[in-house]
Amino acid sequence: MSNPFDRPEALSRRGGPVKEPLSRDRIVTAALALLAEEGLEGMSLRKVAAAVETGPASLYPYVGDLEGLQALVLDRALAAVDTSGAKRRGRRERLKAVLLSYSAVLLEKPGLAQLAMPAPAIGPHTMRLLDTLLGLLEEGGLDRPTAAWAVDLLFLYVTSSALEQTRGHDPRSHVATIRGASAADYPHVHAARAELLSGEVPERFSWALDAVLTGVLACPVTSSRQGSGRKSSR
Amino acid sequence: MSNPFDRPEALSRRGGPVKEPLSRDRIVTAALALLAEEGLEGMSLRKVAAAVETGPASLYPYVGDLEGLQALVLDRALAAVDTSGAKRRGRRERLKAVLLSYSAVLLEKPGLAQLAMPAPAIGPHTMRLLDTLLGLLEEGGLDRPTAAWAVDLLFLYVTSSALEQTRGHDPRSHVATIRGASAADYPHVHAARAELLSGEVPERFSWALDAVLTGVLACPVTSSRQGSGRKSSR
Repeated sequence: MSNPFDRPEALSRRGGPVKEPLSRDRIVTAALALLAEEGLEGMSLRKVAAAVETGPASLYPYVGDLEGLQALVLDRALAAVDTSGAKRRGRRERLKAVLLSYSAVLLEKPGLAQLAMPAPAIGPHTMRLLDTLLGLLEEGGLDRPTAAWAVDLLFLYVTSSALEQTRGHDPRSHVATIRGASAADYPHVHAARAELLSGEVPERFSWALDAVLTGVLACPVTSSRQGSGRKSSR
Repeated sequence: MSNPFDRPEALSRRGGPVKEPLSRDRIVTAALALLAEEGLEGMSLRKVAAAVETGPASLYPYVGDLEGLQALVLDRALAAVDTSGAKRRGRRERLKAVLLSYSAVLLEKPGLAQLAMPAPAIGPHTMRLLDTLLGLLEEGGLDRPTAAWAVDLLFLYVTSSALEQTRGHDPRSHVATIRGASAADYPHVHAARAELLSGEVPERFSWALDAVLTGVLACPVTSSRQGSGRKSSR
């Protein structure tokens, strides 16, 4: 797929159009509204075209194929991520606040997390988010190689958590299985059955984010790449 | 969906069947072979039924619907995860070895990672894996609440990494975008463009696993739940 972010915002039209001229902005706005109302399946090229009063083929010059449109829609949605974090004092708290905002945006509309994984073509709002996270990680004392790899890990973890939460995953079947684990067959699960089922999703997610942030801040990539002692244990 | 792991292994049949009798084991074996050959789309109830020479409706008593069959197939595949780790000395290295084995199993057959996310009904091999990880985390010094939450985080991270790797994600479009990031618009991305694109997938994954393990071992759940200082920063 060609990069949909390289496509023109608007095309000049021959003749005198009476209706509002087509533009990438209008198409993406309509698509995002459809996503919010009808989920990912509702955001077909046919339905988006109908919403802007044109045919599906007319969308192509602005957004490319469906995959291109999806990348544009995701990036537009990510404009809502709060990367300022001005009120947070510590860099680590600011990092966490940005990631929580990213997570909240993904959770707000069904289908967004699915669009984000695997990551599609990267647009300007995703770049802004990436740039912010990189900057905060480096300010937090991470060397550049570690900050670069850490951003990948953080994006993947937050995105997949959101995906798991939005995919209608029914944990109740797990409850019965975990509660029913026998001490003879699964001693550790049996002993930890209450803890395995404890906590609400936001509380567990907040803890997990803290754990991942602690881990990346404590694990320089350079030492693991250069340390011969580590290599032998891989 | 009812729990497919509660279904009978085999049903008695009236009449004298000349062909090999149908059983859950045969159906799941055939389904896993289809998955290996044709991917997730190839593993339809119709094709699986044809492979065991019966009609799709005859599968129902053994495996339930497609979702049930998928859970059974995933669990069967996870039988291949090496949870022994006998040769590894440290608990942390054993933890990592078990997680790497889980990852390798998911990556071996296309579609397995997709079946694992979101987690379907849990079968005996998944329980064995969960039990092993819990045991190693607790032996590693983690209190039980933290070990319980950590298992979730580790499963999700490894599963989503495998999913990202197997989903035909083409990173080349990102390469162009990252290389083209201007110093004016995205200073941190521009400065770290070489690092963002550095390293092979297994190397990055190995580092990320180390980081996540470091994080969970350093972040007791209890202190974050009780610490009033932490609450204010959420």
